[in-house]
Amino acid sequence: MKLAVLFGGASFEHEISIVSAITIKSKLESFNLDFIFCDTDHKFYYIKDTKMKADTFSKKEYKKMPVLLLQEGGFLKQALLKKEVVSATVLNLIHGADGEDGVIASMLDFYKIPFIGPRTPACVFSFNKLYTKYFSQGLGIKSMPFEVLHKTDIRDVSTPLPFIIKPASLGSSIGVSIVKQQEELDYALDVAFEFDSCVIIEPFVKDIKEYNLAGCMIDDKIQYSIIEEPHKNEFLDFDKKYMDFSRSSTVLKAEIDSPLEVKIKDTFAKIYTHMFEGALIRCDFFVMGGEIYLNEINPIPGSMANYLFDDFSMVISGLAHSLPVKKQITCKYEYIHSLSSAKGK
Amino acid sequence: MKLAVLFGGASFEHEISIVSAITIKSKLESFNLDFIFCDTDHKFYYIKDTKMKADTFSKKEYKKMPVLLLQEGGFLKQALLKKEVVSATVLNLIHGADGEDGVIASMLDFYKIPFIGPRTPACVFSFNKLYTKYFSQGLGIKSMPFEVLHKTDIRDVSTPLPFIIKPASLGSSIGVSIVKQQEELDYALDVAFEFDSCVIIEPFVKDIKEYNLAGCMIDDKIQYSIIEEPHKNEFLDFDKKYMDFSRSSTVLKAEIDSPLEVKIKDTFAKIYTHMFEGALIRCDFFVMGGEIYLNEINPIPGSMANYLFDDFSMVISGLAHSLPVKKQITCKYEYIHSLSSAKGK
Repeated sequence: MKLAVLFGGASFEHEISIVSAITIKSKLESFNLDFIFCDTDHKFYYIKDTKMKADTFSKKEYKKMPVLLLQEGGFLKQALLKKEVVSATVLNLIHGADGEDGVIASMLDFYKIPFIGPRTPACVFSFNKLYTKYFSQGLGIKSMPFEVLHKTDIRDVSTPLPFIIKPASLGSSIGVSIVKQQEELDYALDVAFEFDSCVIIEPFVKDIKEYNLAGCMIDDKIQYSIIEEPHKNEFLDFDKKYMDFSRSSTVLKAEIDSPLEVKIKDTFAKIYTHMFEGALIRCDFFVMGGEIYLNEINPIPGSMANYLFDDFSMVISGLAHSLPVKKQITCKYEYIHSLSSAKGK
Repeated sequence: MKLAVLFGGASFEHEISIVSAITIKSKLESFNLDFIFCDTDHKFYYIKDTKMKADTFSKKEYKKMPVLLLQEGGFLKQALLKKEVVSATVLNLIHGADGEDGVIASMLDFYKIPFIGPRTPACVFSFNKLYTKYFSQGLGIKSMPFEVLHKTDIRDVSTPLPFIIKPASLGSSIGVSIVKQQEELDYALDVAFEFDSCVIIEPFVKDIKEYNLAGCMIDDKIQYSIIEEPHKNEFLDFDKKYMDFSRSSTVLKAEIDSPLEVKIKDTFAKIYTHMFEGALIRCDFFVMGGEIYLNEINPIPGSMANYLFDDFSMVISGLAHSLPVKKQITCKYEYIHSLSSAKGK
């Protein structure tokens, strides 16, 4: 099947998206893949699959490749003699801003291009950690207690030490710090505010049990991955998470009992249903005292969490055939017409 | 000052947006206005100000007008001999889908076009009434108790009669019913589900006190409109609200005491700050037992709620100069580069 992998974007996770796309290429070998690169200036380029390697980007060779223009139904390839449209279903693989904040989803929707990935509201609720809190509170799903601090607020933190500071709308652990002593607070906040004007502060619980589960809705039924217990130091920093985005070998199933597995899957289903249709997401949960806590939702996980699925190709092709369809709206101009008539125009 | 009024959109409120734009034209006479029409097929047209009348749309005359292509920095006018770019700050006046659901905001952001209007997250939290509930709960602002029903759910409603049924993501009272007797429930749900797969059910309180307040952030300070007590029958139906979108004569200030006024303004500020910067919004509040309840947030109110402001032109020009700026992201390809080096490529 045909699929256009869209990657890059004007985001702090730009390079991670490139790594993800290169990894995906090797995991979807049976597919007919096009690659569409969005550079940090928001220009689209068509990248031949033989050019899907680090040098193309780090040496800016992509700039010599055909420019694409987004238009209704697909991406128009601007070549010298002929015009061609890349019109496959898009796999949105832009991590962070653009890809996960609703911008790309909105544009693909507007131009009626079918795509695998979170829709605009799903992006808003998962990209920003504060809004994920609003969402989980709304659904009645537990998450860690937290406080919010904006850049212009007084730096008055009431969460007891140690705590973790996260920029509200960045993934891949960028700008995240664990604060163990009061003296570390200012620097940690400075770092976080470099990336975002809003930060989330949560208690840091050492050795907390963490489980990751990915899945997507295919034919009205959620297809789950295995549940993984990620190995980690205190937390995965950017370098480690970066390597994580190129993961391709399958991992071992976490050793958990069946009731906990059911509980984790039910929580996933509650989060996914009516919000994430069309996307393959990974939810990261904490477990404390037998209770499930939502840590974060990755609406476009690194290399699509391929390593968590037995038959990744099958999942992607199933998902591509289960995408939500937007209602077509027409207008008969009845009101406007009656207004004109009433005015005798 | 120059401003490009963007209106229309593929939405049930398409015609309302046309009425709004025609009204705005008469309210911003001192401005140099361009008019950009988005039809229900998502094509953009340049409409001369002399053509801003009902016939242009009801008789589809707009189809003969110059097509515009959205591109970086503005809208490219496709004319026979010359290419011209409409590059003014956009006033997003598309009500309902496209304008208020984050799609247009995302596209203008992507193409680096400054605009007056809610940003993508602000759209998501105000367009969908369920997400407005999540938002107000998150902020600790009261709203009416509610329940949610999806199209596929069993029609089991526990809210006591009478109650009001609203499609989650439609404005202008479209699809809204008051259910007074159990027998009316099925029909009311059928109507609401015609427009949305999710509905909100709230108790209906007859003669509840309602107050509307509009405002926007200019130079880090919120500029408030007067507070209006809207006159209404049980609720404004589509026809009445439709006429409401062409309102242009100023209204009388509601007769409320000063502590209540302060309370309403403080609640508005809590809603607006860190979310609606760049937009002029109108919040509709209920007051019961001295407590403020958020009813809904109109992130692009009909004709920009011009009738609530003493000096509407001044507010719009002030807002146009106080738009949030997106951080420019660049990429040095350090990680990709080190990856290439490590692999000896």
